[in-house]
Amino acid sequence: MTTVAAYAAPAAKAPLERTTIERREVREFDVLIDIKFAGICHSDIHQAQEGWGEAIFPMVPGHEIAGIVEAVGSGVTRFKVGDRVGVGCLVDSCRECENCKAGQEQHCTGGNVGTYNSVGKDGEPTYGGYSQKVVVDENFTVRIPDGLSLDVAAPLLCAGITTYSPLKHWGAGPGKKVAVIGLGGLGHMGVKIAHALGAEVTVLSQSLRKKDDGLKLGADHYYATSDEKTFQELAGTFDVILSTVSAPLNFGAYLSLLKTGGALVNVGAPEEPIALNLFSLIGGNKTLAGSMIGGIAETQEMLDFCAEHSLGAEIELIEASQINEAYQRVVDSDVRYRFVIDTATI
Amino acid sequence: MTTVAAYAAPAAKAPLERTTIERREVREFDVLIDIKFAGICHSDIHQAQEGWGEAIFPMVPGHEIAGIVEAVGSGVTRFKVGDRVGVGCLVDSCRECENCKAGQEQHCTGGNVGTYNSVGKDGEPTYGGYSQKVVVDENFTVRIPDGLSLDVAAPLLCAGITTYSPLKHWGAGPGKKVAVIGLGGLGHMGVKIAHALGAEVTVLSQSLRKKDDGLKLGADHYYATSDEKTFQELAGTFDVILSTVSAPLNFGAYLSLLKTGGALVNVGAPEEPIALNLFSLIGGNKTLAGSMIGGIAETQEMLDFCAEHSLGAEIELIEASQINEAYQRVVDSDVRYRFVIDTATI
Repeated sequence: MTTVAAYAAPAAKAPLERTTIERREVREFDVLIDIKFAGICHSDIHQAQEGWGEAIFPMVPGHEIAGIVEAVGSGVTRFKVGDRVGVGCLVDSCRECENCKAGQEQHCTGGNVGTYNSVGKDGEPTYGGYSQKVVVDENFTVRIPDGLSLDVAAPLLCAGITTYSPLKHWGAGPGKKVAVIGLGGLGHMGVKIAHALGAEVTVLSQSLRKKDDGLKLGADHYYATSDEKTFQELAGTFDVILSTVSAPLNFGAYLSLLKTGGALVNVGAPEEPIALNLFSLIGGNKTLAGSMIGGIAETQEMLDFCAEHSLGAEIELIEASQINEAYQRVVDSDVRYRFVIDTATI
Repeated sequence: MTTVAAYAAPAAKAPLERTTIERREVREFDVLIDIKFAGICHSDIHQAQEGWGEAIFPMVPGHEIAGIVEAVGSGVTRFKVGDRVGVGCLVDSCRECENCKAGQEQHCTGGNVGTYNSVGKDGEPTYGGYSQKVVVDENFTVRIPDGLSLDVAAPLLCAGITTYSPLKHWGAGPGKKVAVIGLGGLGHMGVKIAHALGAEVTVLSQSLRKKDDGLKLGADHYYATSDEKTFQELAGTFDVILSTVSAPLNFGAYLSLLKTGGALVNVGAPEEPIALNLFSLIGGNKTLAGSMIGGIAETQEMLDFCAEHSLGAEIELIEASQINEAYQRVVDSDVRYRFVIDTATI
């Protein structure tokens, strides 16, 4: 066991504070990662506040991890000391179910292991990236290509794959019109990736406050959804709409913006049920879909794609002591566009 | 103009009664069809009762039409006198919009013309299949293959295409598990078609009352949804679920029966909005979709497929005088599985 410094929430809704945690010894197929950067995802806050149900405390959040391999187990073949690597939302899965075999470890039916707020196969709780080091099985470790700085790569491990996977699946690409609802941590990566995939990209945001940013990030158009004319003007426009927000949208109105056969894919979602008139799907053969992160192989594919297109996240680098303040700013949607912790400051 | 006998609702919610209507002269691209059979679709009743909004009266319902070509216009190239033909839900469309050009006339954005309860490009109201003859543009007329009797072919023009199109689109076929919710007019065709496409088919019905029928129609399995164990036993089972009912289902429960990446497609729908927790789509990358009939070319493809596999509808042939009684029995779900009017009795 190795003792490492970390930032943890000691209890639900309590401020995070510096502490130490134990990391397991490096096993046969493990890599020991010297964490350099960890992104702050809104879901860190949901979980630290038990907004998604009972959680495990103390909690060290963080599933957007970028670092350097410091040691490898005897059986490790995919990584060597000094490699630049990342870890996302998962650190293990059953590896035997249909979904695991199909590379969809995020949908493992045998029980996967989250990077934090979860229990490993060894019965020990898992702790996330707000810490100095982490030990992870090589099969749940991905390579960060040289073309990407580690700080701007960290958020790709969640925000990147969460938007890349549905955009690819639903066919964003040349000749397609894609809208991204919300220009936050997820949305800004959605815009960058959809643009790099070759689609014509429109941001649908509550206001025009971030319009300049949106266009710089790769959007071709930017509309305020608080303006009712937006919905008249854009009726029947999009092949794909990616919703990155957790607000209870008027889904009927957004579905009306799809072309025939189009898909509105949710990666954010309100906690409460939405009201949906099914005729808004039947007229126009439309689809309302959901998508949850992506598998390990697809996460690697996304990182390679982002490196090829020089797509890092737009970040505000913070010190560990600023985490609680950053949490409040994320809740207030006051971040452009992802906080990343410099873990050297823990 | 030609005067022909028909059955019409003189006003909303009024019983249908025998009357006469005028059919237009045969124009250059028209075919005059001697109607032999007309199916009764639940949507005939919705419209005759103004359940879907203001309607045009007198109304001659009927968009499941099978008959014989009696005359053709001078420009008609696709049909000749004596041909066996059908007409479905549409008799015209703008023919210029993106959807029309893509063979999706049912989603015409320029304004399509319904077979009844609609207004043609000539400004005249359209009258449907509960009549002795109809005049239709050859481009909205399809061929009924010799292998299909006209009586069992008639319901395919709506119930057949409504289920064939989404089953094909969402990949029903060999190696796929398909569930059909509801064993009525649409559902029984869904079962036949999914089975013929090579899928493993399960009926999800409120009770086991029609189980013997379902298995004879091609279902491999049959479950009662009133039994809670059904939802436990079938969790994560299906690639595609086709919902043919208009009851306000517990969609979260039905979505839980899908495999990762699966799709629940609605061709029936409750009039009121449903409540949906989007996490039931996000976990498992699932899809809730809608589908509305099909285009003209796909309707022809469906008829050819049904003829090849000897798939007619299961019908109760009635005389025109029984239409009102049949309507009540459709409302009471007391039909196995489609009423078809012998139009010689009008």
